[in-house]
Parts: sequence; structure tokens; C-alpha cells
Amino acid sequence: MTPISASLVQKCGHCLMAAMLTAALFAGQALAAQSPEPILVFGHKNPDTDSIVGAIAAAHLLTAQGKPATAMAQGQPNPETQFVLKKFNMAMPAQLGPVAGKPVGIVDFNDAAQGPDDLNDATLVFMADHHKLGGLKTSAPLEAWLLPLGSSNTALYEMMMFYNVAIPKDLAGAMLCAILSDTLMYQSVTTTSRDKTAGAALAKIAQIKDQKALAYDLFKAKSAIEGVSARDLVLRDYKKFEMSGMAVGVGQIEVLSLSMLDGKKEGLLEAMRQIKKESNLHCILLMLTDISKQGTEMLAVSDDPSLPSTAFSSTFKDSSAWLPGVMSRKKQVIPPMEKALKK
Amino acid sequence: MTPISASLVQKCGHCLMAAMLTAALFAGQALAAQSPEPILVFGHKNPDTDSIVGAIAAAHLLTAQGKPATAMAQGQPNPETQFVLKKFNMAMPAQLGPVAGKPVGIVDFNDAAQGPDDLNDATLVFMADHHKLGGLKTSAPLEAWLLPLGSSNTALYEMMMFYNVAIPKDLAGAMLCAILSDTLMYQSVTTTSRDKTAGAALAKIAQIKDQKALAYDLFKAKSAIEGVSARDLVLRDYKKFEMSGMAVGVGQIEVLSLSMLDGKKEGLLEAMRQIKKESNLHCILLMLTDISKQGTEMLAVSDDPSLPSTAFSSTFKDSSAWLPGVMSRKKQVIPPMEKALKK
Repeated sequence: MTPISASLVQKCGHCLMAAMLTAALFAGQALAAQSPEPILVFGHKNPDTDSIVGAIAAAHLLTAQGKPATAMAQGQPNPETQFVLKKFNMAMPAQLGPVAGKPVGIVDFNDAAQGPDDLNDATLVFMADHHKLGGLKTSAPLEAWLLPLGSSNTALYEMMMFYNVAIPKDLAGAMLCAILSDTLMYQSVTTTSRDKTAGAALAKIAQIKDQKALAYDLFKAKSAIEGVSARDLVLRDYKKFEMSGMAVGVGQIEVLSLSMLDGKKEGLLEAMRQIKKESNLHCILLMLTDISKQGTEMLAVSDDPSLPSTAFSSTFKDSSAWLPGVMSRKKQVIPPMEKALKK
Repeated sequence: MTPISASLVQKCGHCLMAAMLTAALFAGQALAAQSPEPILVFGHKNPDTDSIVGAIAAAHLLTAQGKPATAMAQGQPNPETQFVLKKFNMAMPAQLGPVAGKPVGIVDFNDAAQGPDDLNDATLVFMADHHKLGGLKTSAPLEAWLLPLGSSNTALYEMMMFYNVAIPKDLAGAMLCAILSDTLMYQSVTTTSRDKTAGAALAKIAQIKDQKALAYDLFKAKSAIEGVSARDLVLRDYKKFEMSGMAVGVGQIEVLSLSMLDGKKEGLLEAMRQIKKESNLHCILLMLTDISKQGTEMLAVSDDPSLPSTAFSSTFKDSSAWLPGVMSRKKQVIPPMEKALKK
């Protein structure tokens, strides 16, 4: 060691102690100045069970970590979510208002299109999702977990294990429902072994012995279409995407059997044409997903009539085609549509 | 239960078994078709120790999980990184080539500007970072962990604990160095208790008894400025940002004492003016960070001469101002600059 570096080390050693004290003081100030405003946590527009329960779970996680958070919603609960909230004694989160200038957390989405219009003016501090990366930006570091799993609630379950946060019994039941719903009872192509592990652990906490029976109840609630207008059916689980500068809407209705939709398709197509016109869409798709047959009848209305055939390598007749094995909008519908529109 | 739903459940029960078999077959096909091409994992341009060691750590994590990965680099190692690699018997990762069409993982950055030009044409499957969200998009779900911690290597340590991946002794030592370097031995404002916990655990694995002595060796290596040209000093730890449509460059030199830079400032300013001209920057900043005094002498050259004063609420004289307590580019320099440029 040269004399110079030795003297530097010595000098540094003295200053370090003072510096550490200073740092400790700074930390105290930062704590005192911290805003007590709760973090607003919410899922995507037209929320499904994964979004609503995910927001409740994320608010629980953050609050347990000393960061007070409130679950919110961007829309009304669908029949399945209503069933879940009622079964597990949970209140529907309040509807989200303006978020500009407020601390927010997002769950089950991570792109601007699925968020409130003023999302960019909020302070995004938390993200838990299982979708593709959506291009959001922040001006400070945040906590974001994106995991390639079947459900956002699997990610949230893993985060709770990671942070040693206990999961109350009713919340565990609701999270299990979100996983069963998003993975179609572990059968969707997005399902991973981690979804099954999380589901089993949550079932144990919730004291649910028969996941299959619970899943049937869920799917029945999800399939409820009696007395619902064609327009509401199209919009019930509907997302809008920007692809190569064009707007594309994709809805999904999951039913225990396609026969439940017999006689309703012309009405659905008419509602799709109407929504396409109102929202100035290039193309609107509606997935009629048959949970039993493991496939989707795709309804499509497009400015470019050949687009759906190109995207799904399938012949469309009367705006409709049966796509065997297609169950996931995220993995099996969005990527081929993006590819076809890039051409 | 109505007769209709009962029959549906029954039907569904039969189909489920067949569907599960089908799903199992699909899964087998997917495995067989999986590309053996290794994931290329790399940190940001002008790599620091957190980027280089982070890429090595992430490649270890992915490979241990059955996803073969290779650490790469976007640039040559700085003197500190050279010291770390030598001390812990590790090879410098090879330089990154074209990534279009290849599976990639990124560490210690998550914006397009810090990545290779063809990053958008690669398949991003992994991300571990501690910076703000940078607006990248993918076309499929991925694994991304962004944690508001002092170092990407703290996040990677936590991921290895989460996934039960053992950390070899030398890798643990290098990861500890990355944390010590990024947090300025746990003194930067970005430091969290989790960085200290990770550091202590890694020190134990690496059998390092005296973290302080290791940190001094690191800072000495980092402070090495003899025989380095002014231009190379400006660019050694330099990042380019896009703010309100304007290009801003920010470099940082950390020294044990500012006196080590006596007589060099005019040369540094001249190099900054040159780089500003070449890169068509609106503003270029150079942080001369004094680790002992816990502050930064900021050198600034800007098209708008009042910009630095506005951003840092400080009077600049001869393009220079002393900013007490400012140690972090990410937390204390970028946000006020973005705010000042928004006006």
C-alpha cells in the first residue's frame, strides 16, 4: 500500500462515520416527510376476477408491508367476480376516480390502454402482472413483478410468500378462484406448475377440499348469459389494443358449452359492428371459448376482410371460424394478430 | 342445481379428462420444439460493475433453472470491474453482437437507449433491474423483476433465494462488490436494508470478513484516474437520456476525495463540450462525486445556461456547483433534470 492511499483510507475512515450519521438523519427526514396518502391499487378496465381480486390482494400485501393501500376498480364486477366476492365475504372495491398526482399500483395489466386516461400523471409505485411488457414509463424506481404465469394472483401469492405476508382465509379463497378462472382450471396454455402449486397452497389456507367443484361453480357463473344484452356480452371481458398504429378490440366469452350461445351469434356480430364503428376500430374480434371442447369460435369484423384468415391460418365463413385449442387471448390471439398487422 | 347445469357439469367432467390428456400432449410438443439457443444476458452500455457482474449472476440463475444463458457485455470493463473480475477469478463476458431474433435478458437497465440498437427485434425473456420503468415493450409475457433497491445484484441475490439457486463462492464475492459499489458501501440514498441483508449474506458465502476493507479497495480502483484521458473519464460511467424530446448526457466519476481531480476540471469541461457537440446534446453533466464528503461537484454545459441552476436550485460558477448530499444520478440528478426540462 502506498503512503498516499493509506492516508486516503484513513481520512475516508473518519469521514465515513460522520457520513453514516448524516445518512441516518436524512433517512429520518425522508420518513417524516413521507405522504400518508394511500396507494390506489387497481386492475384493468372491464375487470375480470384476476383484476378485482388481484387489486384486493395487492392492497393487502402493500398494507402489510407498512405501505397503506386501497383496492379500487375500473368497472363493474362481472357475474363470476360477483359470485367470488359473495362466496368469500368481500366487498367490491370502489370505482377509481382521477389518479393524477397520486401514488398508484397496477395489477393484471401494464399498458396505458388498459389504464385510466391520467395514468401517466400518477406516480406508479407497484406493478404485479403476467402479461407482455406494455411500454409504461416512470420517473423513479418502483416495485414491479412480471411473471410468465397463468394468473396475476399466482404472482401475488408468490410475492406474499417472498415477503412473509400471511394470507387471510377468505382472501386465499378468492385468489384461488382468480387462478382457477384465469387458467381455466389449470388447462389453459398459459398454465404453469407454479399456478398449480399456488392453487394448492391457497386451497389449503381457504380450507377448500374440492377445487374442481369450485371451478365448476365459477364456470357456471362465468357462463351466465341469460338476460344479458349482446352488447354487454361483447364488452364483458373486452380489451382494446394498438397494433401497428391500428385499433383492435378483442372480447372473450367463456362458456361451458358453445350450444349456450345458439341463436345469439347474429346479435353478437351486430353489436360488434356497432362497437367497431363507435370506437373507430380497424378490427373487432369476439372469442366464444368453449371450456369443455377446449377451443374458440372466433367472430371477426375487420376493415380488411382477409385479416382474420391470415392471422389464424383458418377460413372464416359468415365472419366466424372454429379455432381448436385456442383458449388464451394473450398467448394465442394477440401475437398472431400483431404479426398479421405488421405485414 | 338445475337439471341443465347438472348435465353440463357431467358433460364437462368427461371432457376435462380428455382435455387434460390433450394439454399434456401439447406441453410435450412445446418442450420438444423449444429452441436450445442460449439466452444472451447483458447490462447497459458503458457497463459498470453492477451491469457486468449482474449479467454473470443472471446467466447463472437462468442456467440453473434449466434455461441456458450466456453473460455478454456492451462495452469494456472499467478499472473497478477489472479489479473485481480479477479478485474473484471471473472472465470478462464477451462483447455483445447483433441480437435481432435472439432470446435476450437484460440487467441493470430497462430502456431502449441503454440497449443495443436492435433490442426491439430481439425476444426479451428476462429483466432484473433497480431503475425507473423505461418503456420497453414485448410481444409475449416475460420474467421481469424491478425492485427499488440500491443495486441490481441485490435483486438478483433475492431472486436466487426465491428460486433456491445456490450461489458459488466467487460469484457471491463479485455480487457483494457490485452492491458495495452501487450503494457506495450502503451510504447512497438508494440504499435499503435489503441491500445490507444481501451484502451480509453474500459476504458470508464468499468468506469475506471485512466488507469495509473490500469497499476501500473497490473505491481505490474506481478512483483510478491517473493516465486516463479527460474524454475517457467523462465517458467511463456515462449515460444518455431523452428528456422532453431533448438529449441529455450524464457522466459520473466517484473519487475518494475531490482533491484527486485538482487541475483536471478545465480538461474535463473541454471534453464535455466536445462530446456535447458530437452527440448533439441539449445538455451534458458530469458528476464529480466525493465519496468521503458525501456530495457531488456538478460540471454542466447546457444550451440553456440557466437549466443547471434551475434543476439543482444552486448557483453555477464557471460551469460548476457543489451539491452537498447528492450521490445518485438515478435518484438525485435525473428526476430534477426531467422536471426542469418539462417547464
